[in-house]
Amino acid sequence: MKAYELQKTGSIEGWVQVDRPDPKPGPGQALVRIRAVSLNYRDWVIARGSYRRGLPDLPLIPVSDGAGEVVAVGEGVTRVKPGDRVAPTFFQTWTDGPQTPERTARALGGNIDGVLAQHVVLDAEGLVHLPDYLSFEEGSTLPCAAVTVWNTLVLEGKLQAGQTVLAQGTGGVSIFALQFARMLGARIIITSSHDEKLERARQLGANETLNYKKHPDWEQKVLELTGGQGVDHIIEVGGEQTLPKSLRAARPGGHIHLIGLLSGAPGKPDAAQGDSKQVQLHPVYVGSRVMFEDMNRAMTPHRLKPVIDRVFPFDQAREALRYMQEGAHFGKVVISV
Amino acid sequence: MKAYELQKTGSIEGWVQVDRPDPKPGPGQALVRIRAVSLNYRDWVIARGSYRRGLPDLPLIPVSDGAGEVVAVGEGVTRVKPGDRVAPTFFQTWTDGPQTPERTARALGGNIDGVLAQHVVLDAEGLVHLPDYLSFEEGSTLPCAAVTVWNTLVLEGKLQAGQTVLAQGTGGVSIFALQFARMLGARIIITSSHDEKLERARQLGANETLNYKKHPDWEQKVLELTGGQGVDHIIEVGGEQTLPKSLRAARPGGHIHLIGLLSGAPGKPDAAQGDSKQVQLHPVYVGSRVMFEDMNRAMTPHRLKPVIDRVFPFDQAREALRYMQEGAHFGKVVISV
Amino acid sequence: MKAYELQKTGSIEGWVQVDRPDPKPGPGQALVRIRAVSLNYRDWVIARGSYRRGLPDLPLIPVSDGAGEVVAVGEGVTRVKPGDRVAPTFFQTWTDGPQTPERTARALGGNIDGVLAQHVVLDAEGLVHLPDYLSFEEGSTLPCAAVTVWNTLVLEGKLQAGQTVLAQGTGGVSIFALQFARMLGARIIITSSHDEKLERARQLGANETLNYKKHPDWEQKVLELTGGQGVDHIIEVGGEQTLPKSLRAARPGGHIHLIGLLSGAPGKPDAAQGDSKQVQLHPVYVGSRVMFEDMNRAMTPHRLKPVIDRVFPFDQAREALRYMQEGAHFGKVVISV
Amino acid sequence: MKAYELQKTGSIEGWVQVDRPDPKPGPGQALVRIRAVSLNYRDWVIARGSYRRGLPDLPLIPVSDGAGEVVAVGEGVTRVKPGDRVAPTFFQTWTDGPQTPERTARALGGNIDGVLAQHVVLDAEGLVHLPDYLSFEEGSTLPCAAVTVWNTLVLEGKLQAGQTVLAQGTGGVSIFALQFARMLGARIIITSSHDEKLERARQLGANETLNYKKHPDWEQKVLELTGGQGVDHIIEVGGEQTLPKSLRAARPGGHIHLIGLLSGAPGKPDAAQGDSKQVQLHPVYVGSRVMFEDMNRAMTPHRLKPVIDRVFPFDQAREALRYMQEGAHFGKVVISV
Repeated sequence: MKAYELQKTGSIEGWVQVDRPDPKPGPGQALVRIRAVSLNYRDWVIARGSYRRGLPDLPLIPVSDGAGEVVAVGEGVTRVKPGDRVAPTFFQTWTDGPQTPERTARALGGNIDGVLAQHVVLDAEGLVHLPDYLSFEEGSTLPCAAVTVWNTLVLEGKLQAGQTVLAQGTGGVSIFALQFARMLGARIIITSSHDEKLERARQLGANETLNYKKHPDWEQKVLELTGGQGVDHIIEVGGEQTLPKSLRAARPGGHIHLIGLLSGAPGKPDAAQGDSKQVQLHPVYVGSRVMFEDMNRAMTPHRLKPVIDRVFPFDQAREALRYMQEGAHFGKVVISV
Repeated sequence: MKAYELQKTGSIEGWVQVDRPDPKPGPGQALVRIRAVSLNYRDWVIARGSYRRGLPDLPLIPVSDGAGEVVAVGEGVTRVKPGDRVAPTFFQTWTDGPQTPERTARALGGNIDGVLAQHVVLDAEGLVHLPDYLSFEEGSTLPCAAVTVWNTLVLEGKLQAGQTVLAQGTGGVSIFALQFARMLGARIIITSSHDEKLERARQLGANETLNYKKHPDWEQKVLELTGGQGVDHIIEVGGEQTLPKSLRAARPGGHIHLIGLLSGAPGKPDAAQGDSKQVQLHPVYVGSRVMFEDMNRAMTPHRLKPVIDRVFPFDQAREALRYMQEGAHFGKVVISV
Repeated sequence: MKAYELQKTGSIEGWVQVDRPDPKPGPGQALVRIRAVSLNYRDWVIARGSYRRGLPDLPLIPVSDGAGEVVAVGEGVTRVKPGDRVAPTFFQTWTDGPQTPERTARALGGNIDGVLAQHVVLDAEGLVHLPDYLSFEEGSTLPCAAVTVWNTLVLEGKLQAGQTVLAQGTGGVSIFALQFARMLGARIIITSSHDEKLERARQLGANETLNYKKHPDWEQKVLELTGGQGVDHIIEVGGEQTLPKSLRAARPGGHIHLIGLLSGAPGKPDAAQGDSKQVQLHPVYVGSRVMFEDMNRAMTPHRLKPVIDRVFPFDQAREALRYMQEGAHFGKVVISV
Repeated sequence: MKAYELQKTGSIEGWVQVDRPDPKPGPGQALVRIRAVSLNYRDWVIARGSYRRGLPDLPLIPVSDGAGEVVAVGEGVTRVKPGDRVAPTFFQTWTDGPQTPERTARALGGNIDGVLAQHVVLDAEGLVHLPDYLSFEEGSTLPCAAVTVWNTLVLEGKLQAGQTVLAQGTGGVSIFALQFARMLGARIIITSSHDEKLERARQLGANETLNYKKHPDWEQKVLELTGGQGVDHIIEVGGEQTLPKSLRAARPGGHIHLIGLLSGAPGKPDAAQGDSKQVQLHPVYVGSRVMFEDMNRAMTPHRLKPVIDRVFPFDQAREALRYMQEGAHFGKVVISV
């Protein structure tokens, strides 16, 4: 089968297309024919060799997020069967309950092989059924970015309808934040440096948009848009540059959800600023299989469609990674497998 | 000013139109020109003389729910000012926090005068500003039925997007349940004995509808619609007849929210049935001012419109009460004042 | 090995001592040398043949609760090793998260073989390590009664220090309720028909005691003891007779935790009475492995000791069951294996 | 009456004893004869002139925490009566519910007059009854430090029995953390640079103690004491120096409660470190009147006694402030009035 390997960290060229023998499912495992994968900034950070959670043994099959169809199952597997449309969970052993070191010990495309390959073998317990209404390309966008946003808003943030959410930029996490905030009855403000992206965000349901190039003091605008109160939840993906502004844009007692790590962005917030109005800082780290399943159940009656910016062919996986890394996309970057 | 008084319990004729001197606001109070009121089954139960929470001293100005505009304020009032469009809170002293006997001690149209009058004097702390996009008629529907549903789904039920809600019938509470469930990202099943009402419910966003006349075993249908699991939340307004079925229609560990009291319906559930699969029973009793305000904030970006079945003129208040009591309405019955 | 089998339901004589071949652990399993078991009313209800959750295929090794030591493990087991002191979880597949039908599908001594045997084979995932400071006899009391109380007070009840808990009688559940309520900073009221048991309860830390024989209107006494407010949490183990009184003894918005089922007691509460002050009814059904582990972690620094009424030798298992069923015990009844 | 005024910020000499006319209660107010006050580091930060929440208009009666007895009430007051033993709430208008700017707008000894005076007039709504078993000196220690710890552990932290709490040092906040953690069934680790203080902490119930002078790498010791997992909750009062260590000592997904501000300590944590294992940062800012009342209710059956280091006479208020500021105390520093 065809696959990519990360053979050497440092640059996009570390991704090398190779031929590998077809894997076989052992007891409790399933063989999945991957049909699409989607990229996260983390994939680039790992390739670059600056992943803070530790570097993998090489070669490694990269990419955490994908979708495909079960082609065979090992002994004792009842959870999935050949023909099932599935996506893997980012953490292969986090089924339910809160985060523990054991549950986050094995992350696809990080310290274990990922899914940028025609076939992968995964634990049946680490698979989730895709909603019928989603294509493989759409399904492939869910495991990391969407589950992270679900965990952030629903579990950690306990978002209440009527609250205001601020999402920064128009990458995958922020666009899921926009869509989920709407689905959950919240008001959503989105920022970008491009008016045409803000216009697209409006069409997706953003209640307010802010061009942070035109308004470098966007946090003041946020305060104005919230009657001087500040927003309830900020999806912070920017890190060092934006956190001080986010602290000012949050309401007293509000929540800043730190998702900077996913983007590899360094974060060195001045917590003292948050402290002066009791802003709570919550780092979030993807989520469990049950969260993934609950999210799917929530999306289905709404026919909520992930936003895909562009689909690259398998042979252009490096180009896809470069495109994602350049940051001009709106929503998710996908590779067809 | 014109007003109605409940002068004698037992029948609709207990409501008598009278002239009363115009009230004046004392310190901390506001004088409100009522422009519309809406009816709840409780109004009939009180008029009939069978209100379980104790009967009022007569004469009593009936009706808990209304909307109007502030025309004057007493000393020390800063919370509202003349011209403000407001609705009273059902419990005049429940501002925030959980229910306590003190907070639920004074209920409009129950043990203190209600709002079926041209002018009423209320504590400024017991008023909520109406969202701009709502008419007085629409605003008048909120204090009891809508706040009850908000408290039920958001506070007590901690509804999670993707869960399934079952609402019984198409009265005010059930239609708010339908609308709020949709706003909160839930899936909603609604029952009725009339197909045309079910059709209207579908147009309002109901995901599934069930005619319980045609399907007396509707609880079996509910199980089928939920893959054999049962629903997460049931808005139980029926009481004795429906609770045993609701217990069967709920999922293990699910929630039945008992709102029967509002309708005056007697409830004698066989808890043993719920027990066998750990169904939680939650009676809900309207809610606080903060819940009302949070609900308004949630409704506003969605421009969520309460559903009004019919508006009666002030002189036909008795007809309105009879119409509501007969139960053929869909949504709320309103009286213009 | 020696074991008991339930060979025929209807009476205590259904328990028959037999010889069975020694079981062997398969992959993922552990062989446990049981050293003690403890009895619950459920064990009697199953033997009697009136278990509402469905009757087992016979013969069945009875009893859900036990403790022992691992003597061998099957392939792939890392969670326990020979020599470990362990207790099984009541539900063998409920690891974490909320109750689901799948997680409560397999209950020891109910629809799968229990632990009244010298050796049992269990999934390694269904075992919990015993705290060092507990004997096997003490450890054997935990899986059902103690975990039920932990789930009730901590998870379902979200008990807050300073709240008041009422426990009925002095059986295993009630005495754990007493001990845990104290550990959690709550105030505990306990009822019994015997003054000497109430005296023992006081020595264990009960803040208030009530002899319900001397005070058949004990619910009035409870109201007095709580300044007319009523208690926050009632551990309801009585069912039909006591629930109406419990509803009156609870505070508005308080919680009644229905554990009647465990005792096989029929429950037909008049929910209307609870409704009039919004008492929440929560049936509770044991709990997960994570709850069991969390409970152990909480007990350990307090050196909290389960209260054992009497230990019977293995050959007198029927006598132990009869003794427990007669209800004169204080705390738990244990059989040494 | 005698009182102290903060007449000039910059040093302890800013506190000047003066004679003021006796205040009189207006409508809704109570006149309280203060019998004792207790000091917080905030009192010194305000006197020094470096309070980040804004400086008061001078002269200002300093000190937020006190206890005394009601001597007269104004019109309409039913909540307290002459003779009642009371303490004021830190925030005079935060009754219940979550923190809002309105509720934290008026803080005693900050932007409104405090309680270091023989008589003060306060809103009756801003008073809490003292438990009978506490002296005025003991009661005076509660409003800021104890309520902060209650809010931190119970409300924000949702502490579960069996979790581990780390408190830094032996000041008022840390000793309340020790006592409340024990009351709530938690395990408590306390740090200090003095062995004799650690010994006293052990006598109060500390499960583990750490001398951070002898073990500058105390965070490693904490990891050892928790089996390599890290603690669940850290009461962070140190700020810049200790936060990086606290981030390492916390478990993945654990909670650091930032109470540094109260001590005026600057905080500039490297959130990135927390991020790498999802440590949640929660600044906490005292709490509501309902929290104060709930805390009192929890303390009462345990007869939990605040730890007072030393009581100064009224004339030595400056000495008391200096003593507290020097930081050699264990528990609270009190001034008798």
